[in-house]
Amino acid sequence: MGPADAAQIAAAVAEQRDFARTLFDLLREDGRDDPGVTRDPYGAGEQRAHATVAEAARRLGLGIERDAAANLYMTRPGRDRAAPRMLIGSHLDSVPHGGNFDGAAGVVAGLVALAALARLDRTPECDVTVMAIRAEESIWFQVSYIGSRGALGSLPDGALDVRRNDTGRTLAAHIAACGGDPDGLRAGRRFLDPQTLRAYLELHIEQAPSLLEAGRPVAICTGIPGNFRYPDARIEGSHDHVGLPRRFRRDAAMAGAEFAMAIDRLWEDHEARGVPMAATLGRFHTDPAVHGLTIVPGVFHFSLDVRAYDETVLAELDRAVDAIIAGIEQRRGVVFHRGAKACAAVGAVDPAIRTALTDATAALGIPSLALGSPASHDAAAFAACGVPTGMIFVRNANGSHNPHEAMMLDDFLAGTAVLTHWLATAPC
Amino acid sequence: MGPADAAQIAAAVAEQRDFARTLFDLLREDGRDDPGVTRDPYGAGEQRAHATVAEAARRLGLGIERDAAANLYMTRPGRDRAAPRMLIGSHLDSVPHGGNFDGAAGVVAGLVALAALARLDRTPECDVTVMAIRAEESIWFQVSYIGSRGALGSLPDGALDVRRNDTGRTLAAHIAACGGDPDGLRAGRRFLDPQTLRAYLELHIEQAPSLLEAGRPVAICTGIPGNFRYPDARIEGSHDHVGLPRRFRRDAAMAGAEFAMAIDRLWEDHEARGVPMAATLGRFHTDPAVHGLTIVPGVFHFSLDVRAYDETVLAELDRAVDAIIAGIEQRRGVVFHRGAKACAAVGAVDPAIRTALTDATAALGIPSLALGSPASHDAAAFAACGVPTGMIFVRNANGSHNPHEAMMLDDFLAGTAVLTHWLATAPC
Repeated sequence: MGPADAAQIAAAVAEQRDFARTLFDLLREDGRDDPGVTRDPYGAGEQRAHATVAEAARRLGLGIERDAAANLYMTRPGRDRAAPRMLIGSHLDSVPHGGNFDGAAGVVAGLVALAALARLDRTPECDVTVMAIRAEESIWFQVSYIGSRGALGSLPDGALDVRRNDTGRTLAAHIAACGGDPDGLRAGRRFLDPQTLRAYLELHIEQAPSLLEAGRPVAICTGIPGNFRYPDARIEGSHDHVGLPRRFRRDAAMAGAEFAMAIDRLWEDHEARGVPMAATLGRFHTDPAVHGLTIVPGVFHFSLDVRAYDETVLAELDRAVDAIIAGIEQRRGVVFHRGAKACAAVGAVDPAIRTALTDATAALGIPSLALGSPASHDAAAFAACGVPTGMIFVRNANGSHNPHEAMMLDDFLAGTAVLTHWLATAPC
Repeated sequence: MGPADAAQIAAAVAEQRDFARTLFDLLREDGRDDPGVTRDPYGAGEQRAHATVAEAARRLGLGIERDAAANLYMTRPGRDRAAPRMLIGSHLDSVPHGGNFDGAAGVVAGLVALAALARLDRTPECDVTVMAIRAEESIWFQVSYIGSRGALGSLPDGALDVRRNDTGRTLAAHIAACGGDPDGLRAGRRFLDPQTLRAYLELHIEQAPSLLEAGRPVAICTGIPGNFRYPDARIEGSHDHVGLPRRFRRDAAMAGAEFAMAIDRLWEDHEARGVPMAATLGRFHTDPAVHGLTIVPGVFHFSLDVRAYDETVLAELDRAVDAIIAGIEQRRGVVFHRGAKACAAVGAVDPAIRTALTDATAALGIPSLALGSPASHDAAAFAACGVPTGMIFVRNANGSHNPHEAMMLDDFLAGTAVLTHWLATAPC
């Protein structure tokens, strides 16, 4: 493809501006839950978003399928329908009171790309499918990549029995209520055989301000972090009177504070050595039923999410957490109960796809960055099954997982042009 | 008084064992709120305790009075009824799900002492009044010494408009509902003129295990700590996605953890220099409405209680807290909102009373310790008004402010014997 082709692709994508804006507006209305939007996975919010996206796909003339995990597939047929297909995926669910773009942008981008290709009258060699994925936000079920791993047959044992943290109902019951087939999933049936997938591409808003800082609209992903998590950990000490001398105290909150500071130092040290990672204590709290101004906290609750781009680094961090906990238990006379542990593998990016996407930004004249994904994504579940995977990040202000995320439509269209360019030029 | 007298006093107090046990059992039943007891101030729990104690006093033939703050006064008349009287006081309220002895032990001790004096047929020179004080536990209204300062006319401005943290009703409304006169309090009328008080004595369980550690039943108080408190402080940072790199974060929980560790180090340093103090972050928590596994906490809540035995030390600690907060705000891009500040003055113990109480333990053959009070007590409110004040601590296991506090009746009777000995020998 020459520069003229790149210009044609950019123009065809730009023509879809109103389609994209309208679809984002509909999704925002579907999920409105002031402040922000709530598209609860396998619940009313996500269901409305799936219906809206399916309707838009139908109007584009795409073929519609659904699998046992109630994922939605929207396909433009290629010339060779038996050839391995290209998958453009992202999730439609959100955190509670989140923004409109985390997840949904990737699905809208896929539909815009297919609309642009149709406008250019290009029939791809192989099928191109946009996949609207279920239940990516792990805050709800505290299991990673439920929809994509459900499709790939790689859900972890016991996942279907996990309960959503607000409804208390199991994942299986939620899937069934949304027209899925939990028994099929339990039997290990998969909808997507990795062998039949040429590639998995995902466009996502950047959830950190690196692109804002760099003044560029688009980044090409260099890797997706793996993680280990303790969603529901607890420290037990002793509830005591506020006047108790220090030597007698078994203060669970002070133990929590010491733990947090040790984790923060661990991160600071890794950063100083240039080893990327992140660590978050998202829930970090005394017990509201018993805490008070004049009571030394005897119990403390926290969640821990630790992520890195290298399995060796993750394993080292896991051992470091063990050592930190052992030291605090000894010094402060408290006991840590870590509870269930969840893990997600590091997601490698396919070098050929990364190169092709970088070339596409150059051909389109779009300034870009190479960027390790700050967040986890369904792409990691595909990479873990051996599917060649790539990701495009779009500049976004105010982070994500909050009502204030702010992606500019121009930046979204730039990222989508890169995606479309890749689809138009990638060998099927 | 000689040894024979001391033996008589000890025997007269020991004879009240069943009276004390029965009264404690009645109070426990009145306040039962499994686990533990709840005697909510100016609420149903405290009301039942006041009724039970008043009934016991009536049976002992004591005169009954109540003041505008609904405190209860139970008096054995002295020979000179115009002479300044002796006050034996303690509070009857408890924390939620607290123990049976914190507060109530001092009231029961006063009644036992008066019963023992009656049994010994001793009419004191001046009136001796047992005062059952209202609303000492500041967890409810977050104001210190409500009952005693109400009686002394030294309630701080605005106290009557403060709302109880569970009912949301004002202190004035609660006082009125319990038969008190909030308008009288608002007009500054006082029931107790400090000039008419010869002394204020308070027996209380020890809320730390120093007596257990030392193997002694009784301690004579050397001072009551003053404090400053931020009952409802908040740190504001930014809610962000769990993948956000460290340099972009404004993590309110990490700021809270750093604050807690700095306060802990401050205490450790003071301890190493032999300067007694205590610091407690009783409430220490992310916001349950918005926190989650995959969200960097953007807001964090805490309470702070800092106490010491010296006003100069307290003032230094206050400045140290300012400096710690300023440093964290700068390093972490967060803002601390400290909210309302509450203070209580250091309560000095009268040297003559302390000596007399120590002499009483020697005369009675009761092993004792000299001990700075770990906790705040109504005694401090009397000391602040110039009333000569003393306190007796009784050995107690498992701390207080929890259902497991465990004072042995023998230890209680030993402490009460010291109190009775003092009443029998103190110059009126």
